[in-house]
Amino acid sequence: MIRKLIIATHGQGLHEITLAVEDAVRECGLDEGLCTIFIQHTSASLIVQENADPSVCRDLERWLSRLIPEGDSLYTHNSEGADDMPAHVKAALTASSISIPITDGRLSLGTWQGIYLWEHRRRKAARQVVVHVQR
Amino acid sequence: MIRKLIIATHGQGLHEITLAVEDAVRECGLDEGLCTIFIQHTSASLIVQENADPSVCRDLERWLSRLIPEGDSLYTHNSEGADDMPAHVKAALTASSISIPITDGRLSLGTWQGIYLWEHRRRKAARQVVVHVQR
Amino acid sequence: MIRKLIIATHGQGLHEITLAVEDAVRECGLDEGLCTIFIQHTSASLIVQENADPSVCRDLERWLSRLIPEGDSLYTHNSEGADDMPAHVKAALTASSISIPITDGRLSLGTWQGIYLWEHRRRKAARQVVVHVQR
Repeated sequence: MIRKLIIATHGQGLHEITLAVEDAVRECGLDEGLCTIFIQHTSASLIVQENADPSVCRDLERWLSRLIPEGDSLYTHNSEGADDMPAHVKAALTASSISIPITDGRLSLGTWQGIYLWEHRRRKAARQVVVHVQR
Repeated sequence: MIRKLIIATHGQGLHEITLAVEDAVRECGLDEGLCTIFIQHTSASLIVQENADPSVCRDLERWLSRLIPEGDSLYTHNSEGADDMPAHVKAALTASSISIPITDGRLSLGTWQGIYLWEHRRRKAARQVVVHVQR
Repeated sequence: MIRKLIIATHGQGLHEITLAVEDAVRECGLDEGLCTIFIQHTSASLIVQENADPSVCRDLERWLSRLIPEGDSLYTHNSEGADDMPAHVKAALTASSISIPITDGRLSLGTWQGIYLWEHRRRKAARQVVVHVQR
Protein backbone atom coordinates (compact mmCIF):
# COMPACT_ATOMS: atom_id res chain seq x y z
CA MET A 1 0.00 0.00 0.00
CA ILE A 2 1.24 3.46 -0.88
CA ARG A 3 0.08 6.78 0.54
CA LYS A 4 1.41 10.24 -0.25
CA LEU A 5 1.64 12.78 2.56
CA ILE A 6 1.79 16.52 1.94
CA ILE A 7 3.61 18.19 4.82
CA ALA A 8 3.40 21.97 5.21
CA THR A 9 6.62 23.40 6.63
CA HIS A 10 7.21 26.93 7.88
CA GLY A 11 10.95 27.35 7.87
CA GLN A 12 14.03 25.44 8.94
CA GLY A 13 13.87 22.78 11.63
CA LEU A 14 12.39 19.39 12.51
CA HIS A 15 8.66 18.94 11.88
CA GLU A 16 7.21 15.83 13.52
CA ILE A 17 5.22 13.58 11.17
CA THR A 18 4.83 10.51 13.39
CA LEU A 19 1.03 10.74 13.60
CA ALA A 20 0.59 11.09 9.84
CA VAL A 21 2.78 8.03 9.20
CA GLU A 22 0.99 6.05 11.93
CA ASP A 23 -2.34 6.90 10.30
CA ALA A 24 -1.16 5.42 7.01
CA VAL A 25 0.02 2.28 8.81
CA ARG A 26 -3.27 1.88 10.70
CA GLU A 27 -5.25 2.35 7.49
CA CYS A 28 -3.33 -0.52 5.95
CA GLY A 29 -4.48 -2.92 8.67
CA LEU A 30 -1.36 -5.10 8.70
CA ASP A 31 -0.37 -6.74 11.97
CA GLU A 32 3.24 -7.26 10.99
CA GLY A 33 5.22 -5.70 8.18
CA LEU A 34 7.53 -2.89 7.15
CA CYS A 35 6.83 0.82 6.67
CA THR A 36 9.18 2.79 4.41
CA ILE A 37 9.04 6.56 4.08
CA PHE A 38 10.74 8.43 1.24
CA ILE A 39 11.00 12.18 0.73
CA GLN A 40 10.69 13.52 -2.81
CA HIS A 41 13.01 16.49 -2.23
CA THR A 42 16.74 17.13 -1.97
CA SER A 43 16.64 20.21 0.27
CA ALA A 44 14.69 18.54 3.08
CA SER A 45 15.24 15.14 4.68
CA LEU A 46 13.92 12.54 7.13
CA ILE A 47 15.13 11.65 10.59
CA VAL A 48 14.07 9.58 13.59
CA GLN A 49 14.90 11.49 16.77
CA GLU A 50 13.87 12.06 20.36
CA ASN A 51 10.38 13.54 20.74
CA ALA A 52 10.45 13.82 24.54
CA ASP A 53 12.41 17.05 25.06
CA PRO A 54 12.05 19.65 22.24
CA SER A 55 15.48 21.08 23.08
CA VAL A 56 17.03 18.08 21.28
CA CYS A 57 15.45 19.07 17.95
CA ARG A 58 16.39 22.73 18.42
CA ASP A 59 20.01 21.84 19.21
CA LEU A 60 20.16 19.53 16.18
CA GLU A 61 18.99 22.35 13.90
CA ARG A 62 21.47 24.84 15.36
CA TRP A 63 24.37 22.37 15.24
CA LEU A 64 23.77 21.44 11.60
CA SER A 65 23.32 25.08 10.55
CA ARG A 66 26.61 26.00 12.21
CA LEU A 67 28.43 23.14 10.42
CA ILE A 68 26.86 24.09 7.08
CA PRO A 69 26.40 27.87 7.09
CA GLU A 70 25.05 30.09 4.35
CA GLY A 71 27.51 32.29 2.47
CA ASP A 72 30.28 29.71 2.25
CA SER A 73 32.64 30.80 -0.55
CA LEU A 74 32.97 27.17 -1.62
CA TYR A 75 29.48 27.15 -3.13
CA THR A 76 29.13 27.73 -6.87
CA HIS A 77 25.43 26.72 -6.92
CA ASN A 78 23.96 30.04 -5.75
CA SER A 79 21.13 30.72 -8.20
CA GLU A 80 18.29 29.45 -6.00
CA GLY A 81 19.08 31.48 -2.87
CA ALA A 82 21.66 31.56 -0.09
CA ASP A 83 19.92 28.77 1.82
CA ASP A 84 19.71 26.39 -1.18
CA MET A 85 23.17 24.82 -1.39
CA PRO A 86 23.43 24.50 2.42
CA ALA A 87 20.07 22.70 2.24
CA HIS A 88 21.45 20.18 -0.27
CA VAL A 89 24.50 19.49 1.93
CA LYS A 90 22.30 19.05 5.01
CA ALA A 91 20.07 16.63 3.11
CA ALA A 92 23.15 14.72 1.91
CA LEU A 93 24.27 14.15 5.51
CA THR A 94 20.85 12.97 6.69
CA ALA A 95 18.34 10.45 5.26
CA SER A 96 16.05 10.44 2.23
CA SER A 97 14.43 7.12 3.20
CA ILE A 98 13.81 5.34 6.52
CA SER A 99 12.28 1.89 7.07
CA ILE A 100 10.53 0.97 10.33
CA PRO A 101 9.14 -2.50 11.14
CA ILE A 102 5.47 -2.84 12.07
CA THR A 103 4.51 -5.06 15.02
CA ASP A 104 1.03 -5.52 16.48
CA GLY A 105 -0.30 -3.16 13.85
CA ARG A 106 1.91 -0.26 14.93
CA LEU A 107 5.27 1.26 14.04
CA SER A 108 7.84 -0.35 16.33
CA LEU A 109 9.38 2.96 17.40
CA GLY A 110 11.33 3.15 20.66
CA THR A 111 9.72 4.84 23.65
CA TRP A 112 11.18 8.26 22.93
CA GLN A 113 11.36 8.13 19.15
CA GLY A 114 9.47 10.32 16.71
CA ILE A 115 9.67 10.62 12.91
CA TYR A 116 10.57 14.07 11.60
CA LEU A 117 10.74 15.86 8.31
CA TRP A 118 13.82 18.08 8.54
CA GLU A 119 13.18 21.24 6.55
CA HIS A 120 16.40 22.90 5.35
CA ARG A 121 14.92 25.85 3.41
CA ARG A 122 13.78 29.15 4.97
CA ARG A 123 10.63 29.66 2.92
CA LYS A 124 7.27 27.95 3.50
CA ALA A 125 6.95 24.74 1.54
CA ALA A 126 4.59 21.83 0.86
CA ARG A 127 6.79 18.72 1.07
CA GLN A 128 5.82 15.36 -0.38
CA VAL A 129 6.59 12.16 1.52
CA VAL A 130 5.70 8.74 0.07
CA VAL A 131 4.76 6.02 2.58
CA HIS A 132 5.00 2.36 1.52
CA VAL A 133 3.59 -0.39 3.75
CA GLN A 134 4.03 -4.06 3.02
CA ARG A 135 3.91 -7.46 4.67
CA MET B 1 9.33 -12.27 10.07
CA ILE B 2 10.43 -9.98 12.87
CA ARG B 3 13.08 -10.62 15.50
CA LYS B 4 14.22 -8.29 18.24
CA LEU B 5 17.91 -8.26 19.18
CA ILE B 6 19.18 -6.98 22.51
CA ILE B 7 22.74 -5.73 22.11
CA ALA B 8 24.85 -5.08 25.20
CA THR B 9 27.24 -2.17 24.67
CA HIS B 10 30.10 -1.11 26.93
CA GLY B 11 30.84 2.44 25.91
CA GLN B 12 31.30 4.48 22.76
CA GLY B 13 32.33 2.85 19.50
CA LEU B 14 31.27 0.36 16.84
CA HIS B 15 29.96 -2.99 18.06
CA GLU B 16 29.69 -5.63 15.33
CA ILE B 17 26.27 -7.32 15.10
CA THR B 18 26.68 -9.13 11.77
CA LEU B 19 26.41 -12.62 13.25
CA ALA B 20 23.25 -11.82 15.22
CA VAL B 21 21.57 -10.39 12.10
CA GLU B 22 22.72 -13.36 10.00
CA ASP B 23 21.23 -15.72 12.58
CA ALA B 24 17.84 -14.02 12.23
CA VAL B 25 18.07 -14.28 8.42
CA ARG B 26 19.02 -17.98 8.54
CA GLU B 27 16.19 -18.74 10.93
CA CYS B 28 13.77 -17.22 8.44
CA GLY B 29 14.82 -19.71 5.74
CA LEU B 30 14.26 -17.40 2.78
CA ASP B 31 16.44 -17.88 -0.28
CA GLU B 32 15.89 -14.39 -1.64
CA GLY B 33 14.48 -11.34 0.08
CA LEU B 34 15.27 -8.21 2.03
CA CYS B 35 16.52 -7.76 5.58
CA THR B 36 15.86 -4.43 7.30
CA ILE B 37 17.35 -3.48 10.65
CA PHE B 38 16.02 -0.61 12.74
CA ILE B 39 17.43 0.74 16.02
CA GLN B 40 14.94 1.85 18.67
CA HIS B 41 17.21 4.58 20.09
CA THR B 42 18.29 8.09 19.17
CA SER B 43 21.68 8.12 20.92
CA ALA B 44 23.03 5.06 19.08
CA SER B 45 22.88 4.24 15.37
CA LEU B 46 23.55 1.62 12.68
CA ILE B 47 26.30 1.47 10.10
CA VAL B 48 27.76 -0.92 7.54
CA GLN B 49 31.54 -0.59 7.57
CA GLU B 50 34.78 -2.47 6.99
CA ASN B 51 35.30 -5.41 9.33
CA ALA B 52 38.72 -6.41 8.03
CA ASP B 53 41.01 -3.94 9.84
CA PRO B 54 39.77 -2.78 13.29
CA SER B 55 41.68 0.51 12.91
CA VAL B 56 38.92 1.69 10.54
CA CYS B 57 36.28 1.47 13.29
CA ARG B 58 38.56 3.14 15.83
CA ASP B 59 39.36 6.01 13.45
CA LEU B 60 35.65 6.47 12.66
CA GLU B 61 34.85 6.78 16.37
CA ARG B 62 37.68 9.25 16.97
CA TRP B 63 36.82 11.33 13.89
CA LEU B 64 33.13 11.64 14.79
CA SER B 65 33.90 12.46 18.44
CA ARG B 66 36.26 15.22 17.35
CA LEU B 67 33.62 16.70 15.00
CA ILE B 68 30.94 16.49 17.71
CA PRO B 69 32.69 17.03 21.06
CA GLU B 70 31.18 17.16 24.52
CA GLY B 71 30.97 20.55 26.23
CA ASP B 72 29.95 22.51 23.13
CA SER B 73 28.41 25.79 24.33
CA LEU B 74 25.79 25.48 21.58
CA TYR B 75 23.95 22.70 23.43
CA THR B 76 20.94 23.65 25.56
CA HIS B 77 19.88 19.99 26.10
CA ASN B 78 22.27 19.14 28.94
CA SER B 79 20.04 17.45 31.53
CA GLU B 80 20.93 13.86 30.61
CA GLY B 81 24.72 14.17 30.76
CA ALA B 82 27.54 15.74 28.77
CA ASP B 83 27.60 12.85 26.28
CA ASP B 84 23.84 12.94 25.56
CA MET B 85 23.42 15.79 23.09
CA PRO B 86 26.61 14.82 21.17
CA ALA B 87 25.08 11.32 20.96
CA HIS B 88 21.91 12.70 19.35
CA VAL B 89 23.93 14.68 16.79
CA LYS B 90 26.07 11.62 15.98
CA ALA B 91 22.94 9.52 15.51
CA ALA B 92 21.44 12.22 13.28
CA LEU B 93 24.45 12.04 10.93
CA THR B 94 24.39 8.24 10.70
CA ALA B 95 21.58 5.71 10.08
CA SER B 96 18.63 4.50 12.13
CA SER B 97 17.65 1.88 9.53
CA ILE B 98 19.57 -0.13 6.92
CA SER B 99 18.19 -2.59 4.35
CA ILE B 100 20.31 -5.40 2.90
CA PRO B 101 19.14 -7.80 0.16
CA ILE B 102 19.25 -11.55 0.84
CA THR B 103 20.60 -13.87 -1.86
CA ASP B 104 21.12 -17.63 -1.59
CA GLY B 105 19.78 -17.47 1.95
CA ARG B 106 22.42 -15.01 3.14
CA LEU B 107 22.88 -11.26 3.56
CA SER B 108 24.48 -9.98 0.37
CA LEU B 109 27.20 -8.04 2.14
CA GLY B 110 30.40 -7.17 0.29
CA THR B 111 33.57 -9.11 1.10
CA TRP B 112 34.80 -6.68 3.75
CA GLN B 113 31.49 -5.43 5.08
CA GLY B 114 30.14 -5.88 8.60
CA ILE B 115 27.02 -4.49 10.29
CA TYR B 116 27.67 -2.40 13.39
CA LEU B 117 25.69 -0.81 16.16
CA TRP B 118 27.41 2.52 16.81
CA GLU B 119 27.11 3.34 20.51
CA HIS B 120 27.34 7.08 21.22
CA ARG B 121 26.84 7.04 25.03
CA ARG B 122 29.60 6.38 27.58
CA ARG B 123 27.61 4.21 29.99
CA LYS B 124 26.79 0.52 29.54
CA ALA B 125 23.51 -0.01 27.73
CA ALA B 126 21.19 -2.73 26.40
CA ARG B 127 20.23 -1.57 22.92
CA GLN B 128 17.23 -2.89 21.00
CA VAL B 129 17.44 -3.56 17.28
CA VAL B 130 14.42 -4.81 15.31
CA VAL B 131 15.16 -7.13 12.36
CA HIS B 132 12.54 -7.52 9.63
CA VAL B 133 12.95 -10.18 6.92
CA GLN B 134 10.62 -10.49 3.96
CA ARG B 135 10.40 -11.96 0.51
CA MET C 1 13.57 -9.82 -7.67
CA ILE C 2 17.26 -9.06 -7.28
CA ARG C 3 19.62 -7.56 -9.86
CA LYS C 4 23.28 -6.71 -9.41
CA LEU C 5 24.64 -3.60 -11.10
CA ILE C 6 28.32 -3.09 -11.82
CA ILE C 7 29.10 0.63 -11.91
CA ALA C 8 32.40 1.81 -13.36
CA THR C 9 33.68 4.91 -11.57
CA HIS C 10 36.57 7.15 -12.61
CA GLY C 11 37.49 9.03 -9.48
CA GLN C 12 35.79 10.91 -6.68
CA GLY C 13 32.35 12.42 -7.11
CA LEU C 14 28.70 11.60 -7.75
CA HIS C 15 27.96 9.16 -10.58
CA GLU C 16 24.30 9.06 -11.60
CA ILE C 17 22.79 5.55 -11.70
CA THR C 18 19.09 6.45 -12.02
CA LEU C 19 18.68 4.86 -15.46
CA ALA C 20 20.29 1.58 -14.42
CA VAL C 21 18.04 1.31 -11.36
CA GLU C 22 14.96 2.24 -13.43
CA ASP C 23 15.85 -0.51 -15.91
CA ALA C 24 15.85 -3.09 -13.12
CA VAL C 25 12.47 -1.80 -11.89
CA ARG C 26 10.95 -1.89 -15.38
CA GLU C 27 12.24 -5.42 -15.95
CA CYS C 28 10.44 -6.52 -12.81
CA GLY C 29 7.09 -5.39 -14.18
CA LEU C 30 5.54 -4.43 -10.86
CA ASP C 31 2.98 -1.65 -10.82
CA GLU C 32 3.38 -0.86 -7.15
CA GLY C 33 6.12 -1.87 -4.75
CA LEU C 34 9.43 -0.93 -3.19
CA CYS C 35 12.91 -0.72 -4.70
CA THR C 36 15.89 -0.98 -2.35
CA ILE C 37 19.46 -0.36 -3.45
CA PHE C 38 22.45 -1.47 -1.39
CA ILE C 39 26.14 -0.80 -2.08
CA GLN C 40 28.60 -3.61 -1.31
CA HIS C 41 31.46 -1.24 -0.43
CA THR C 42 32.50 0.93 2.52
CA SER C 43 34.53 3.53 0.61
CA ALA C 44 31.68 4.54 -1.71
CA SER C 45 28.04 5.29 -0.87
CA LEU C 46 24.58 6.04 -2.23
CA ILE C 47 22.67 9.31 -2.31
CA VAL C 48 19.52 10.80 -3.81
CA GLN C 49 20.25 14.35 -4.93
CA GLU C 50 19.32 17.02 -7.45
CA ASN C 51 20.02 16.06 -11.06
CA ALA C 52 18.92 19.35 -12.62
CA ASP C 53 22.00 21.54 -12.09
CA PRO C 54 25.34 19.67 -12.06
CA SER C 55 26.87 22.37 -9.84
CA VAL C 56 24.98 20.84 -6.88
CA CYS C 57 26.88 17.54 -7.21
CA ARG C 58 30.20 19.31 -7.66
CA ASP C 59 29.65 21.49 -4.58
CA LEU C 60 28.64 18.42 -2.54
CA GLU C 61 31.88 16.66 -3.48
CA ARG C 62 34.00 19.72 -2.65
CA TRP C 63 32.20 20.36 0.63
CA LEU C 64 32.59 16.79 1.86
CA SER C 65 36.25 16.62 0.81
CA ARG C 66 36.97 19.82 2.71
CA LEU C 67 35.25 18.47 5.86
CA ILE C 68 37.11 15.16 5.57
CA PRO C 69 40.53 15.90 4.04
CA GLU C 70 43.37 13.52 3.32
CA GLY C 71 46.43 13.69 5.57
CA ASP C 72 44.53 14.16 8.82
CA SER C 73 46.91 13.23 11.66
CA LEU C 74 43.99 11.56 13.46
CA TYR C 75 44.00 8.61 11.05
CA THR C 76 45.86 5.45 12.08
CA HIS C 77 44.42 3.38 9.19
CA ASN C 78 46.82 4.50 6.47
CA SER C 79 47.92 1.26 4.81
CA GLU C 80 45.54 1.43 1.83
CA GLY C 81 46.38 4.94 0.64
CA ALA C 82 45.84 8.54 1.75
CA ASP C 83 42.32 8.60 0.29
CA ASP C 84 41.18 5.38 2.02
CA MET C 85 40.33 6.45 5.57
CA PRO C 86 38.68 9.70 4.35
CA ALA C 87 36.60 7.47 2.06
CA HIS C 88 35.40 5.38 5.01
CA VAL C 89 34.42 8.51 6.95
CA LYS C 90 32.58 9.93 3.95
CA ALA C 91 30.70 6.65 3.50
CA ALA C 92 29.84 6.62 7.22
CA LEU C 93 28.16 10.04 6.90
CA THR C 94 26.14 9.10 3.82
CA ALA C 95 23.98 6.05 2.98
CA SER C 96 24.75 2.41 2.21
CA SER C 97 21.09 1.61 1.40
CA ILE C 98 18.16 3.64 0.07
CA SER C 99 14.56 2.51 -0.47
CA ILE C 100 12.27 4.17 -3.01
CA PRO C 101 8.58 3.29 -3.50
CA ILE C 102 7.39 2.23 -6.97
CA THR C 103 4.13 3.69 -8.32
CA ASP C 104 2.66 3.14 -11.80
CA GLY C 105 5.60 0.88 -12.58
CA ARG C 106 8.19 3.60 -11.96
CA LEU C 107 10.41 4.85 -9.14
CA SER C 108 8.48 7.59 -7.36
CA LEU C 109 11.36 10.06 -7.44
CA GLY C 110 10.63 13.77 -7.12
CA THR C 111 10.87 15.96 -10.21
CA TRP C 112 14.50 16.92 -9.70
CA GLN C 113 15.78 13.79 -7.97
CA GLY C 114 18.40 11.40 -9.28
CA ILE C 115 20.08 8.38 -7.67
CA TYR C 116 23.85 8.60 -7.38
CA LEU C 117 26.73 6.37 -6.44
CA TRP C 118 29.14 8.60 -4.53
CA GLU C 119 32.68 7.42 -5.21
CA HIS C 120 35.12 8.38 -2.45
CA ARG C 121 38.33 6.79 -3.82
CA ARG C 122 40.63 8.40 -6.40
CA ARG C 123 41.37 5.29 -8.45
CA LYS C 124 39.12 3.74 -11.09
CA ALA C 125 36.80 1.12 -9.63
CA ALA C 126 34.02 -1.32 -10.55
CA ARG C 127 31.42 -0.88 -7.79
CA GLN C 128 28.69 -3.40 -7.06
CA VAL C 129 25.17 -2.26 -6.20
CA VAL C 130 22.43 -4.78 -5.38
CA VAL C 131 18.87 -3.82 -6.39
CA HIS C 132 15.94 -5.52 -4.67
CA VAL C 133 12.39 -5.03 -5.98
CA GLN C 134 9.33 -6.35 -4.19
CA ARG C 135 5.59 -5.91 -3.93
